[in-house]
Amino acid sequence: MGNCAQGFKDFFCRPKNTNVRVSLPAVCFVWQIAMIILFGVFIRYNEEADTHWVEHKKSHNITSDIENDFYFRYPSFQDVHVMIFVGFGFLMTFLKRYSFGGVGFNFLIASFGVQWALLMQGWFHTLDHSTGKIYIGVESLINADFCTAGSLIAYGALLGKVSPVQLMVVTLFGVTLFAVEEYIILSLLHCRDAGGSMVIHCFGGYYGLAISWVLYRPKLHLSQRLNGSVYHSDVFAMIGTLFLWMFWPSFNSAITDHGDGQHRTAINTYLALASCVLTSVAISSMSQKTGKLDMVHIQNATLAGGVAMGTAAEFMITPYGALIVGFCMGIISTFGYLFVTPFLEKYLKIQDTCGVHNLHAVPGMLGGFIGAITAAAASESVYGKEGLISTFDFEGSFKDRTPGTQGGFQAAGTCVSIAFGLVGGALMRIPNTGFVNVSFLFNRSESNFSVEQS
Amino acid sequence: MGNCAQGFKDFFCRPKNTNVRVSLPAVCFVWQIAMIILFGVFIRYNEEADTHWVEHKKSHNITSDIENDFYFRYPSFQDVHVMIFVGFGFLMTFLKRYSFGGVGFNFLIASFGVQWALLMQGWFHTLDHSTGKIYIGVESLINADFCTAGSLIAYGALLGKVSPVQLMVVTLFGVTLFAVEEYIILSLLHCRDAGGSMVIHCFGGYYGLAISWVLYRPKLHLSQRLNGSVYHSDVFAMIGTLFLWMFWPSFNSAITDHGDGQHRTAINTYLALASCVLTSVAISSMSQKTGKLDMVHIQNATLAGGVAMGTAAEFMITPYGALIVGFCMGIISTFGYLFVTPFLEKYLKIQDTCGVHNLHAVPGMLGGFIGAITAAAASESVYGKEGLISTFDFEGSFKDRTPGTQGGFQAAGTCVSIAFGLVGGALMRIPNTGFVNVSFLFNRSESNFSVEQS
Amino acid sequence: MGNCAQGFKDFFCRPKNTNVRVSLPAVCFVWQIAMIILFGVFIRYNEEADTHWVEHKKSHNITSDIENDFYFRYPSFQDVHVMIFVGFGFLMTFLKRYSFGGVGFNFLIASFGVQWALLMQGWFHTLDHSTGKIYIGVESLINADFCTAGSLIAYGALLGKVSPVQLMVVTLFGVTLFAVEEYIILSLLHCRDAGGSMVIHCFGGYYGLAISWVLYRPKLHLSQRLNGSVYHSDVFAMIGTLFLWMFWPSFNSAITDHGDGQHRTAINTYLALASCVLTSVAISSMSQKTGKLDMVHIQNATLAGGVAMGTAAEFMITPYGALIVGFCMGIISTFGYLFVTPFLEKYLKIQDTCGVHNLHAVPGMLGGFIGAITAAAASESVYGKEGLISTFDFEGSFKDRTPGTQGGFQAAGTCVSIAFGLVGGALMRIPNTGFVNVSFLFNRSESNFSVEQS
Repeated sequence: MGNCAQGFKDFFCRPKNTNVRVSLPAVCFVWQIAMIILFGVFIRYNEEADTHWVEHKKSHNITSDIENDFYFRYPSFQDVHVMIFVGFGFLMTFLKRYSFGGVGFNFLIASFGVQWALLMQGWFHTLDHSTGKIYIGVESLINADFCTAGSLIAYGALLGKVSPVQLMVVTLFGVTLFAVEEYIILSLLHCRDAGGSMVIHCFGGYYGLAISWVLYRPKLHLSQRLNGSVYHSDVFAMIGTLFLWMFWPSFNSAITDHGDGQHRTAINTYLALASCVLTSVAISSMSQKTGKLDMVHIQNATLAGGVAMGTAAEFMITPYGALIVGFCMGIISTFGYLFVTPFLEKYLKIQDTCGVHNLHAVPGMLGGFIGAITAAAASESVYGKEGLISTFDFEGSFKDRTPGTQGGFQAAGTCVSIAFGLVGGALMRIPNTGFVNVSFLFNRSESNFSVEQS
Repeated sequence: MGNCAQGFKDFFCRPKNTNVRVSLPAVCFVWQIAMIILFGVFIRYNEEADTHWVEHKKSHNITSDIENDFYFRYPSFQDVHVMIFVGFGFLMTFLKRYSFGGVGFNFLIASFGVQWALLMQGWFHTLDHSTGKIYIGVESLINADFCTAGSLIAYGALLGKVSPVQLMVVTLFGVTLFAVEEYIILSLLHCRDAGGSMVIHCFGGYYGLAISWVLYRPKLHLSQRLNGSVYHSDVFAMIGTLFLWMFWPSFNSAITDHGDGQHRTAINTYLALASCVLTSVAISSMSQKTGKLDMVHIQNATLAGGVAMGTAAEFMITPYGALIVGFCMGIISTFGYLFVTPFLEKYLKIQDTCGVHNLHAVPGMLGGFIGAITAAAASESVYGKEGLISTFDFEGSFKDRTPGTQGGFQAAGTCVSIAFGLVGGALMRIPNTGFVNVSFLFNRSESNFSVEQS
Repeated sequence: MGNCAQGFKDFFCRPKNTNVRVSLPAVCFVWQIAMIILFGVFIRYNEEADTHWVEHKKSHNITSDIENDFYFRYPSFQDVHVMIFVGFGFLMTFLKRYSFGGVGFNFLIASFGVQWALLMQGWFHTLDHSTGKIYIGVESLINADFCTAGSLIAYGALLGKVSPVQLMVVTLFGVTLFAVEEYIILSLLHCRDAGGSMVIHCFGGYYGLAISWVLYRPKLHLSQRLNGSVYHSDVFAMIGTLFLWMFWPSFNSAITDHGDGQHRTAINTYLALASCVLTSVAISSMSQKTGKLDMVHIQNATLAGGVAMGTAAEFMITPYGALIVGFCMGIISTFGYLFVTPFLEKYLKIQDTCGVHNLHAVPGMLGGFIGAITAAAASESVYGKEGLISTFDFEGSFKDRTPGTQGGFQAAGTCVSIAFGLVGGALMRIPNTGFVNVSFLFNRSESNFSVEQS
């Protein structure tokens, strides 16, 4: 970790007018070398990905290769992977002068983020203290994608305002914070949060908003005319929207329990998303004199149902419960785009380019509380004795926890994620005072995918 | 169902000049609330998605979580989901002024359609009369996507001519008709139709054509110049084409029998599609003086092989049989675009924007008959004794049915689907006399995704 | 095979000024009919896709349908399918006047290629000599997609310079060469090459370069201004890049051993790709005065890590080993785009439109050697006794082979693939002397997807 901290300090604190031609390659090279060294020291294949699987199978009485975790999770993993790179990437192509930046920088930081996430999450969650190694498998890859998603959400609030080097720093710091926050919420508080309403969306959203607040530049309105879309860039953004929307059931179910856990989570998410589309469209149409629909709402608010089901989807929230969640989220998120985003910009000086406040921060927070309520309402009559234990992992030192207590801890977990996001993002100001002087936002055609010096 | 019927009547019969700003939100809200109430009354998780799975597993001697139906069908489900939202959606982006409308309204009506389909199909197929509940799992989600596909196909014939409220009505009515028709074909006639040549494509195609006939407006030729594509909108449409084409093996195999059923269906569909591309290209090139290819044929006719294999793909049609089906369909479908679509518009006054006649109606109908012939030709020597029974479900009250009889019933099923499509679509005229007065088709730049009053 | 050889000769040797309106339909029809006849004679379902699966299961003590190979490989197959049609197709849309040609001709030749590949690979690898039949299943479909990929790679070097008929010939010849080369490398030399660094990428890359050399036309620089991209065509190309990048772990793991084999391969490929992105970006930024990134590098060099892991990914290369491979490939590939492509064009008269030299040929070759080194370094202490045997298939007549020997054979295999690519491509000159006189390259707007006479 020492190497990495070194790299971190080097580039985080460098003078503000470093030319990007030097700083970007330097960051990429040094950090990637650090990753290689750290992987060499820490990361190994787990027993399901190692050639010793043949022997492991025999010793554990596993009768068929199909019981390898790979076959339970790999299809979902690939769906999640598509969401991270095509979903988030293309959702950010809507700006007429920044399509390359949206999809390209997303590609760069996600590629770095997953590597750093494998290390950070490994140290906190799966480090084998007897060997000092982290053993990875397909579930680790999914978790790494999830962890990176937090930073990509933050990028949504910063789109067009930061240099790639700054984005790398935001990602390094974001993944680190994520791993700590996740450790507190999942391990210490023993919350359930398979789809990450709390740990991913709520954290990522507030993290991005806090950085955006730190970054505020008063002359930004001069470039306001560049903060717009053209017809084709909005169609590109629909590619992102649809791949996020379609694969969200995989996102939420990717790491839930084998069997009924994954099955139920997928159904709940599917229903919440379907319901969310109708109310988003309704509010969008009502908000305009002519009843026209606003593409911003169609591209974003329709996804809020999936965000809000990240925690509760694996519980017995019931199919109609899922529809109700989607129904409310479509309304809340669209109202957010109509009223809260302009308010944040005007009065709180927070510029939120993609509106992550309405798509991730608030629905994620509400999703955390919905999860808390659903958990608190759980009962043996609905879940069955064994079902209750396996759903909430009431085992080991948590075997005496009641659903009511669990609900309380879930709510506490949500507050932890908000705090980490806000404080973590605000802290970004301290080490890099140059941050607020970044001088390029849409100030030129980006037709060469150019990035100017920060 | 009462609530829904109420909502149905309210909006279906409302005066024709309602402003879309009122009618669209009203339809979305009222119908979505109706869905929530009906789901509350009727829909529950099935035993594979419920927390009682732990106990179910024990009582049914299931040794591993991997035998949960989720793992058999979820990857195919996600492929089907991509076809419904990205495939159908982007296929309809080709119009230069209606890309948002194509992908956006498709998104809206599919999101409503799947919910209503879960209820309608549940009532007809899986209602547990002892509890009065419908138990859903991943197969239900796939079926709901299928059911919605019928209405999306109909949208293809209406693209650019109807308001979103009318589309919602078309979907409500279409899904209802679909469930009835499917009940007659699959349950009463005991047909096999896993990929839905009959129940989805043939029905959906004729349903759309019949509505388009009802909608005919004589002045439409004045906006003819807007019924065109531009270079980039045609590239967007290729995204739709390719995702439909690639995932069609999943579409046809998603709900076939576990094991060899899914395996064989995927292979047959893959081969028919490959073959179809070559003959589509050949006819397209022959049809133009310079040998240029027409993007309309590349985008559509190449898919006809998948449509036509919807019924027969799960039978032992043999690999070369699949190639022959694709070969013929590429020719028939491309000829349809060259000669039948202009004929329909000129003489029968049916405007078919996307050419669903050539891509869905005719290949679907032929697919039904191909299925009938393949079924009639089945024999114990080819299928094996047990294979024949399991492929055609000759069990229970159908245990004495012979392949020959089955073939007859398959053919009858195809006729039922045509009848439902034509009559159902034509009936759309009765309750809504305002339908024919819809006055907007491409009459303005759609750059704001606007919808004008219907 | 006689029919096909006939069709081959007919169109391969036809006079050079044949109008494409005649030649393209003729090639499509005759070759497709040949496929149908050959499939009728040779191709049948294998026991896992046949209705006799019920009996096969009983006789082989298979307890559950989930152990059908379909469930091990179908999700990966669909990912590979997306790479072939959307990945390769959209990666070639970047030319401003040739987006239709890129995606459309890719669609055409891949559809033909997979059929011919099923036959060629069947004859060489899976022909049952007792019945004279080839039995196909999902693994055959994956292999057919792989085999076709070789020709699609070659198309990348020829993009915009050849007619569709010539592309069909290139594919027919390419698939044939591929099957022979693959037979030598995998069966005779007993190499392991699951992801095809050698057999697919190295072969395909050099095959395309050799054809491009044969095709060289001195006046090409006159159309240089058309060999460029516009903003939106570059965004379309990113769709191709990302789907290739995301699904590469599926590509490499699609046909590796069940269980740990697929699991480990996916992890290694994922890591190499992530690492490759950072170094590609670094070199790209360093290469320009202003630190701007070049979209050509982002679209292509980021994929080199996946290419280079095609052979070694299934071995115990270790996670950090995978990162190192990606690290080096990003550098090498980007340098290739900066220096080698211009050199090839200026001094060797090889025009390589998509830069397949840097993305496929060199990384594929290096991947072959990386595989050789990794294999040679294998030991029982790392792999375990049974693991070593199953990973390298040291069974039957190869049961005495040592890892060191295996490494030597792997290296030899790489040389075979280079030789086949170069010689095979250069031979394309002989039968078709008209090749070099093809007169159209971007010489008109391609807005009608037109192809002019060859």
